[in-house]
Amino acid sequence: MSKILSSETWDRLRASGARTVALQFPEGLKRRAPETAAVLKEAGYAVVISGDPCYGACDLATDALALADVLIHFGHAPVDDHPGVIYEYVQFDFDPEMATKAIALLDIKRPVGLVTTVQHAHLTDAVVAVLEASGFQVVVGEGNARTPCRGQVLGCSYASARAAGTDQFLYVGTGVFHAIGVGLATGARVVALDPYTGTAEEADSSRLLRRRFAQIEKARQAKTVGILLSTKTGQRREDLARHLASLSPVADIICMQEVSPDSLLNLGYECYVNTACPRLAYDDQVRFPVPVLSPPEYEIVQGVRDWDDYIIDEI
Amino acid sequence: MSKILSSETWDRLRASGARTVALQFPEGLKRRAPETAAVLKEAGYAVVISGDPCYGACDLATDALALADVLIHFGHAPVDDHPGVIYEYVQFDFDPEMATKAIALLDIKRPVGLVTTVQHAHLTDAVVAVLEASGFQVVVGEGNARTPCRGQVLGCSYASARAAGTDQFLYVGTGVFHAIGVGLATGARVVALDPYTGTAEEADSSRLLRRRFAQIEKARQAKTVGILLSTKTGQRREDLARHLASLSPVADIICMQEVSPDSLLNLGYECYVNTACPRLAYDDQVRFPVPVLSPPEYEIVQGVRDWDDYIIDEI
Repeated sequence: MSKILSSETWDRLRASGARTVALQFPEGLKRRAPETAAVLKEAGYAVVISGDPCYGACDLATDALALADVLIHFGHAPVDDHPGVIYEYVQFDFDPEMATKAIALLDIKRPVGLVTTVQHAHLTDAVVAVLEASGFQVVVGEGNARTPCRGQVLGCSYASARAAGTDQFLYVGTGVFHAIGVGLATGARVVALDPYTGTAEEADSSRLLRRRFAQIEKARQAKTVGILLSTKTGQRREDLARHLASLSPVADIICMQEVSPDSLLNLGYECYVNTACPRLAYDDQVRFPVPVLSPPEYEIVQGVRDWDDYIIDEI
Repeated sequence: MSKILSSETWDRLRASGARTVALQFPEGLKRRAPETAAVLKEAGYAVVISGDPCYGACDLATDALALADVLIHFGHAPVDDHPGVIYEYVQFDFDPEMATKAIALLDIKRPVGLVTTVQHAHLTDAVVAVLEASGFQVVVGEGNARTPCRGQVLGCSYASARAAGTDQFLYVGTGVFHAIGVGLATGARVVALDPYTGTAEEADSSRLLRRRFAQIEKARQAKTVGILLSTKTGQRREDLARHLASLSPVADIICMQEVSPDSLLNLGYECYVNTACPRLAYDDQVRFPVPVLSPPEYEIVQGVRDWDDYIIDEI
């Protein structure tokens, strides 16, 4: 990405009549803040930058927006409607031919669903073309309001995978978390392709599930339970938190902005249930001092859900 | 403190007609959350706990209060008026006779000002009596709205010391930061007494000043400057942030809830100016990757304040 801001964003900015612009970057792009601010100031805008940690469009900088006329949120697609927010996608290119590296792991006789994350979604059609040229039938599902790009998945939303309805998927992106999520959400076989290195592997959800089941068992002993309620715009599941708190007299609702190991340790509850970003429980358990369960996992502990109905948490 | 809540707090709670109570504890008291919640639930209240970090009454849990009828804030005196907040002081006792340990460092021929922090303020009169019995004339100054207890100081407010007007002080409390602050704010000599160990020492502000002057010099090279604006209720100095940002074209306002080393590193500015809690710059500089100046220090860098007019930042 050579340009600081897309022409669409400049157009929207001009059309908005804004004089003060708030900027919000995810952690990996925060270093662009000084240069982006300089370009906007050069163009006559006043600028306010959000310095708080940000990992998704579920966490809009409403504090910074309150000091400005519009907020430009970088790097994510919208997960909900919020007035005054302009989303500046940040696209990461790769060579679509990389998809051929995954072909040997896929069954050419059955349709394959294609899923990816927002920063690669602009290359979805190119990857489809490569797979079709190799003889595959490819299905790209429509997402929902939280995943507006075709074939897009989030760590908290796999609607486009369910919509594809295939029993095998190719996930294009780094890491295996999203691929495991697709597997848990659909029951399908998922091949994860790193589009930079060309490494392809079958995503294995069994290790995650074994670790989660161990945490569920550990949580049964807890004499105090903290139900975490996020104050972030797209992670605030208040009704769910109240429902979970109602399942036990020793459960308290704890509202917080950032769920950190230090905060959980200081509060001293023996178990937490996370209604904020689902990845916190799945990805960060090793950093937390006690079990941090997903809402469906806590329902298993409380006996209102069967082991067999284990599902991945989605927002 | 054996009781979970004082009788005054129970009275105010009953009088408020509240049904849902939000609880906020500073880090050192957060472990009391589960037990306090249990007592309130037993008494028929619904409870919401604030899990965010808290270091003072300048940081009221408005998010938690929005989910409840009242907020009980533990451990601090009010720094500003905020509807719906009940302050539950947490008093830490010590033996007032400990004051005799500091006598040898004070000049009995001149009046001595007495200052302390809120958790010891209930023993101020007892300490005055001990000093007077030893032949001292003791002055306890009234504070301001931010320091409602007589003789109380905060890391961001030394009004009660200025009000005392003495040229020597006894500070009763742990650590030396407040004692150094009293010295910088008043120019007086300050003896710091740890009320638990009986250790007394003269507070020396010269080391802090040397370190600060080094940071000021380093900040002169910065090609980008981030002006930190806190979103916390009692730390939000928006006019000051705008004034400071106006002093240089390379300065941007950055709003944030928690000022953390990681956040400052990720943003990549070469210098920051802190309009949030003044202690961040003075106490935590070693944790930060680049100079974090106080507002008066940045005015020195920008040439709108003389070195000789160096003052400690107060809110």
